[in-house]
Parts: sequence; C-alpha cells; structure tokens
Amino acid sequence: MKTETTIQGLSASLSPARAAKKLIGFVPTMGNLHEGHLNLVREARKLCDVVVVSIFVNPIQFGPNEDFDNYPRTLDQDSKLLAEVGCDIVFAPSVEQMYGKKPRLTNISVGEITNDLCGLQRPGHFDGVAVVVTKLFNIVQPNYAFFGQKDYQQLAVIRQFVQDLNIPLEVIGVPIARAADGLALSSRNGYLSEEQRQTAPVIFQTLKQAEQQLQQKTSLDEVLVNIKAALTQAGLVVDYVEARTPELQKTSEFNQDLVLFVAAKLGKTRLIDNLQVKFTA
Amino acid sequence: MKTETTIQGLSASLSPARAAKKLIGFVPTMGNLHEGHLNLVREARKLCDVVVVSIFVNPIQFGPNEDFDNYPRTLDQDSKLLAEVGCDIVFAPSVEQMYGKKPRLTNISVGEITNDLCGLQRPGHFDGVAVVVTKLFNIVQPNYAFFGQKDYQQLAVIRQFVQDLNIPLEVIGVPIARAADGLALSSRNGYLSEEQRQTAPVIFQTLKQAEQQLQQKTSLDEVLVNIKAALTQAGLVVDYVEARTPELQKTSEFNQDLVLFVAAKLGKTRLIDNLQVKFTA
Repeated sequence: MKTETTIQGLSASLSPARAAKKLIGFVPTMGNLHEGHLNLVREARKLCDVVVVSIFVNPIQFGPNEDFDNYPRTLDQDSKLLAEVGCDIVFAPSVEQMYGKKPRLTNISVGEITNDLCGLQRPGHFDGVAVVVTKLFNIVQPNYAFFGQKDYQQLAVIRQFVQDLNIPLEVIGVPIARAADGLALSSRNGYLSEEQRQTAPVIFQTLKQAEQQLQQKTSLDEVLVNIKAALTQAGLVVDYVEARTPELQKTSEFNQDLVLFVAAKLGKTRLIDNLQVKFTA
Repeated sequence: MKTETTIQGLSASLSPARAAKKLIGFVPTMGNLHEGHLNLVREARKLCDVVVVSIFVNPIQFGPNEDFDNYPRTLDQDSKLLAEVGCDIVFAPSVEQMYGKKPRLTNISVGEITNDLCGLQRPGHFDGVAVVVTKLFNIVQPNYAFFGQKDYQQLAVIRQFVQDLNIPLEVIGVPIARAADGLALSSRNGYLSEEQRQTAPVIFQTLKQAEQQLQQKTSLDEVLVNIKAALTQAGLVVDYVEARTPELQKTSEFNQDLVLFVAAKLGKTRLIDNLQVKFTA
C-alpha cells in the first residue's frame, strides 16, 4: 500500500492503472476509521482493480462552533487498518495541498435537500462537502465512489450533484455497519461514556420498532411521535425525527418506500441513524 | 466531421481517441459562429489531436428579460464553417439532453469576481455559465479548453472554478478577433444597423487611445473619464468603463498590468470589449 500526500504524487501513482484502463474505486473519508469505513473499502475491493482511500479532515464542512480542531487524526492506525482490507493507495493531503494559498472563490450548493435534517443545524455544511468531494473526484477520477448510507443525506446530496453536473463516475451507497447491539458505527461513538454507550443502541431499537408499527398500519405521524417519546425517555435530546422518500422528499403517509431519520444528542455527542422501510401494499 | 446530439453518442465517438491517449481540445460555443469562434477552433487544431466544438444555447445563463428565445440558431451554417477549419466533432445537444427531466438542484457560484462588470447587470448569469461549462467539461473530458478573451470576465470565472475545483484540464485564453476597423467580433454585431456598425469601432479606437494616454502617464481616473466621454459623444450609452488587474481585482493606479473594460449600448445592442495594457515602469 502506498501513501500519497500530494495531488501530483497521487496522479503519478494512478497513471499506470489509468493507462491500463483498470477500474478505480474511491472511498473518501475523514480518517479515524472504523468497521463502517472498512466495509466501504471491502465493497470497493470487490468491484474495482485499484482502491484509493482519501483521509482528509475538510475544514470547510465544519461550522464555527464545530469540532474541526479536535476531530481525531489517527493516520498511522488508519493506515494499518486500510492495508489489512486491501487498500492500494492512501491519499492524505494537507489543507494547503487541497485548498492552495490563493483564496477559493467557488462554491457548490445543492438546493432543497440540504435545507433540512442535518442541513438545518449546520448551514454551509453540505456546500463544504460538495466542494471537497467534487475536488477529490477531479483529483482521483475514479470509476466508482463509495459512501455509507449512515450519512444518508450526504449520500443523496452527492448523488444529486454528480447527476446535475454529469460527473463521470458511479456513486455506490453501502448499507450501515452496526455494532452487535445495533448501534450504527461512527467516529463519534468514541466520545460516549460507558454508560452512554449502553444507552445508544436505543436509537436503532426504536427505529426497528417503528418499522414494525408502520408495517402493522400505525399512521406515520403516530410512529414519529412514538420514536421521539422513546428516545426522550431513554435520556436523549432529540434534534429531529423525520420521514422522507428515498430521494429526500417530504411525505406524510406510508404509501411508498421511505427512510426514517433520527438525530439526537446523548450528553454532548450528536448521533444520527436512519432506517429504510419498504412499503408493501 | 461528425455531429453528435447525445451525451452517449459523443462518448462513443470520443472513446477511441481517449483510449489512444490522444489530446482532446474543446471549444464550447452557443453557435451563430463568427471568425472569433473559428479562431478558437484553429488554436485547438494546432494544439490537439481531436477537436470537439459544442453548440448549445444554454437557457440558465439568460436572465428573464434576455434574448434566449431569439438567440440565433444557425446549426447548418455553423457546421459548414466548423468543417472548413478542421473541427472533428460537433456536439449539439438539446436542452433536455443537457438538463434531463428531473429538476436540477445544484448550483455553482464564483464569488467576488462575478459581482461587478457584466455580473452586476446580469444576476445569476455567471452561475449559469459555471454550471453548463462544468457539465460540458465532465461530458467531453478534454485536455484543453479554449475561450475567447473577448468575454474576459467569463474567462477569468472559468479559470477560477477550474482551479478551485481541480478540474483536470488546461484553460487557454485566445486573443480577441477583430474586424479590419477594430470592432471586436460578436454574434451581437449582427443586430447593428448599417449606421450603428459604422459607429461601433469607436469602442476599440477609444481603448487604444486610452492605452496611449496611460503610457504617457495620464492618471487612470482621468483616462477612464476620457473613455466614457468619447463613447457618449459617439452616441453610445455607457454601461461601465472599468480598470481591473488581469485577475479582475480592482485597482485605481496604473502601476501594474491591467485590463480596460467597456460595456455600452448602441441602440438596443449591448457591446463589450476590453484591452490588456502592459505597465512598463
């Protein structure tokens, strides 16, 4: 496994693969990798000849009160894990390598689907994601790019701008990796105390109960109220509980496939999760 | 010369050239071609193995009161001219081919340098240019893209987002093509009456006089006032007369290379021109 820290170095490393028309798979990450990320790499490994993983904590997707400076940087450990699952190239650029010395004037915004759910509390966040992911796509020029369904809204935003801008690659969404007790894997789980870690699986349990309720014809409104109540009772502070179509359009009835979204704080740690629920008439 | 009207058809046409690592040159246009456009194609022909010219009147760069519906569409004549100067592939997609049936949610904006000059009177214009040019870049995937210096602000905007987004190609700016009397070639010159056409070269003559005045150490402020006065006296209604650095930063003194910009109406027709002036201490 090679590690490249410059755009030029990465291009040189990828040049033989590109010339040989090998399939290039790309997994963008901010590092601090867990099984969720490694699953993305495993999927890329299955489908592609060459697997590139980027590790870059992107300053422009953090808000002024968010944890950019304290975001964990664990490159050595990440590199070991990536080598084990068959990554070929780690791309770990500096902020200056990615953004240069001249001011960036260009912004990419995706309307409508970034205005609610996680976008509501994080103005500009998805713009920052869209810009950095577009840059990385242009640098790596992969055939396939892999993103987790855990960040479902992020995945939908990326699918949208890839389609709108004709970016020549295919986006692959990979199902959420969960701990044995159902908790969706996340870098933020490391912030939880032992007690909070015991509580956190209630999110997934509640979503599974909601799925059952929907399939037993409980109304969507009632189900959303039930989720909120269950999470609040367990000691979480709910940020949002929402239902959307798979394309993130609002819906008030369960008469099509939909996705249930939860964001809630456990102590200081904000956790998100979602569950896709199939409608069968 | 081939003509392709679909993205898929274009990709198929370009596939052998791409596989053979031939250099692909790209000239995006809105058609109604004149010598200025043909010069871009000639430059592309010199530098590249395969030359692609797109002809697409882009609805999203026209304002609500602008001339999208009446913009001249002259594909047959354009194709003849392009064949003569050695274009290999004309890409002439429909609006639906470019924008699909689903609503576009993604926007690209370039800050600061789009807020004045032509951007001031045309809100959203450069966003529309940035989106369509990015789409075309992703569809054609050229090594080089050619733009005229006549639309200097547009060229600067394109250079900026190509750099900011790491788009993997080189932008080439081609000097303004002028009629024998100095009038910058433009599709809009066709709107001029015979009398207006006689008057129009005053723009370039005035810019050349301004260059002389600057080199004779007349102050920049005075020179700009002189340009305005000369154009107004000739019967034009001045929209703006401005000086900028080559990167479009404002400047009030002639102590570096700069670009003089003029936009003025002659009857109903808005004409623009610019002149790069070298500073020699």
